[in-house]
Amino acid sequence: MTNSDVTVLGLGQMGSALAAALLRAGHQTTVWNRTAAKATALAAEGAQVAATAAQAQAASPVIIACVLDYPALHEILDPAALAGRTLVNLTSGSPEQARETAAWAAGHGIGYLDGGIMITPPGISNPASMLLYSGPRTAFTDTGKLLSAFGEAIYLGADPGVASLYDTALLGIMWASMTGWLHAAALVTADGATAAEFTPLAIRWLGDVSGFVRAYAQQVDERAYPGFDATIDVQAATIEHLVHASEVRGIDAALPKLLRDYAKRAVAQGHGGDGWARVIELLRAA
Amino acid sequence: MTNSDVTVLGLGQMGSALAAALLRAGHQTTVWNRTAAKATALAAEGAQVAATAAQAQAASPVIIACVLDYPALHEILDPAALAGRTLVNLTSGSPEQARETAAWAAGHGIGYLDGGIMITPPGISNPASMLLYSGPRTAFTDTGKLLSAFGEAIYLGADPGVASLYDTALLGIMWASMTGWLHAAALVTADGATAAEFTPLAIRWLGDVSGFVRAYAQQVDERAYPGFDATIDVQAATIEHLVHASEVRGIDAALPKLLRDYAKRAVAQGHGGDGWARVIELLRAA
Ligand SMILES: NC(=O)c1ccc[n+]([C@@H]2O[C@H](COP(=O)([O-])OP(=O)(O)OC[C@H]3O[C@@H](n4cnc5c(N)ncnc54)[C@H](OP(=O)(O)O)[C@@H]3O)[C@@H](O)[C@H]2O)c1
Ligand SMILES: NC(=O)c1ccc[n+]([C@@H]2O[C@H](COP(=O)([O-])OP(=O)(O)OC[C@H]3O[C@@H](n4cnc5c(N)ncnc54)[C@H](OP(=O)(O)O)[C@@H]3O)[C@@H](O)[C@H]2O)c1
Repeated sequence: MTNSDVTVLGLGQMGSALAAALLRAGHQTTVWNRTAAKATALAAEGAQVAATAAQAQAASPVIIACVLDYPALHEILDPAALAGRTLVNLTSGSPEQARETAAWAAGHGIGYLDGGIMITPPGISNPASMLLYSGPRTAFTDTGKLLSAFGEAIYLGADPGVASLYDTALLGIMWASMTGWLHAAALVTADGATAAEFTPLAIRWLGDVSGFVRAYAQQVDERAYPGFDATIDVQAATIEHLVHASEVRGIDAALPKLLRDYAKRAVAQGHGGDGWARVIELLRAA
Repeated sequence: MTNSDVTVLGLGQMGSALAAALLRAGHQTTVWNRTAAKATALAAEGAQVAATAAQAQAASPVIIACVLDYPALHEILDPAALAGRTLVNLTSGSPEQARETAAWAAGHGIGYLDGGIMITPPGISNPASMLLYSGPRTAFTDTGKLLSAFGEAIYLGADPGVASLYDTALLGIMWASMTGWLHAAALVTADGATAAEFTPLAIRWLGDVSGFVRAYAQQVDERAYPGFDATIDVQAATIEHLVHASEVRGIDAALPKLLRDYAKRAVAQGHGGDGWARVIELLRAA
């Protein structure tokens, strides 16, 4: 017997935002958190508070879990309570952990959808926010209406590991880009500019970089990297200016040096006439 | 006595594109290149071909130079021919080289504007292309009409080193972002996705990253990095998934490990509750 539409397990920063979004969207919502006090505000907004994790899992046909990590998740999952229901797991982890949990769920007659949330808690409910899902299509279609309360629900296919693989891959792009931008900001502020002056140009430039990346995607799939626009040979020369400008200003040059190293290795392998996308072959051959 | 509006010194891939753009915009254009054969196509489009570099510099009130590097530039500059004219230097180099050349020009009564071209030759003449300039404002206003033939001319101020500093800094963002994307593409293609499937999401995500960067610019200028959205503590945990997912797939993890190292150092210094922009303090303290 279920008595609500959806359950949220885990009321940290993210789980609380998810539960609040479900309540705002008008869904009967049961919540549970290890530290019970975090449920108080949601109860005031109309959430039913379950006394135990097992009761929370029995309360709804769809159970959304968002706790710290997979060990925490496995501590609270109750296969008897979950049987016949659908578990939507928004806890961050590796693709391998997602696949293992999906297999575990299948073995217990539990529907399973894995997800990656590409936004911080304040972005939940914004329809422009990206949430990635993968797992059996039925698990996605059955839960889609609930999930639309969080942002745009993007379905990536049946392999339950794909959502967290994309999540991890996209976060990697974020850390690399943000650190590249911070390095650039360190350079220009060393000479008296402000980050506020520089950043609008950097953002415009990131739009141009998106255009280069769009063109290179085809090269990556074809594994052919013609240097039709800018060759690694030319970039290996200009990257020296970046290392030099960093060192002259006492700025850590580890990132430029790593990038220079890829360029040099591509040149040494005879690929200096190729474009930057050739670097993926060095990454793959690790 | 000048007999044309503008001279282009250096007819490599970029210099040829610049000269062609000037001709298309209707400017009387003199050209010169060390290897004379590269002038043939431009002559057919109406360019006057100078016999020597000095004659080319004497032919116009504005001289645009775009050769391989500063040593090549200094081989061809002729202070007697340039006196009273304006030199627009679009040769890539360090801010220090730009400043030295500006001082040299000032000492010979030559106007000087330094520039950085943020596009490959096919992008020349596209009004959306960014070209950065710095140096005395009069040198920019006097040449602005000619320079508008290349794309959007963005003036960055009187310090002649700023254009090349911004150029270098922006290229650093490009290499970091493109390599982050290539790493991400290596991850997802290892599990059977195509770069063509993944890249539209990556590009959309780069737009989100631009939003984070916009918010962090103010933190950088204020040197205070409150982790209001995502703390380094949380990211230090998720970055482990990126390293792990790379290693499991045999993909080079040097970039994720470098990024993890910054996160760990920030945490070790007691700044785990801050946001990612805190990393700039590690870069500055090198
Ligand atoms: N915050 C973001 O921007 C963001 C973005 C995307 C994805 N995520 C992911 O969302 C998940 C939750 O993140 P968060 O920001 O909500 O973190 P958080 O605020 O630190 O909350 C962690 C949650 O996990 C629970 N928990 C930890 N260990 C547990 C255990 N052994 N048993 C039961 N519950 C346990 C905590 O319960 P207590 O309250 O009892 O400690 C709390 O509800 C993480 O996997 C995170 O990577 C977060
Ligand atoms: N291509 C791009 O995408 C791009 C983008 C932004 C900035 N840039 C910058 O633009 C500049 C030119 O690049 P490019 O792509 O045109 O390179 P390129 O095609 O290799 O042409 C190099 C030019 O420099 C000349 N040169 C080299 N050494 C010389 C010397 N000692 N004396 C006289 N001339 C010499 C060459 O003359 P010869 O023909 O006689 O060899 C040629 O005209 C570089 O600083 C580059 O970094 C290029």
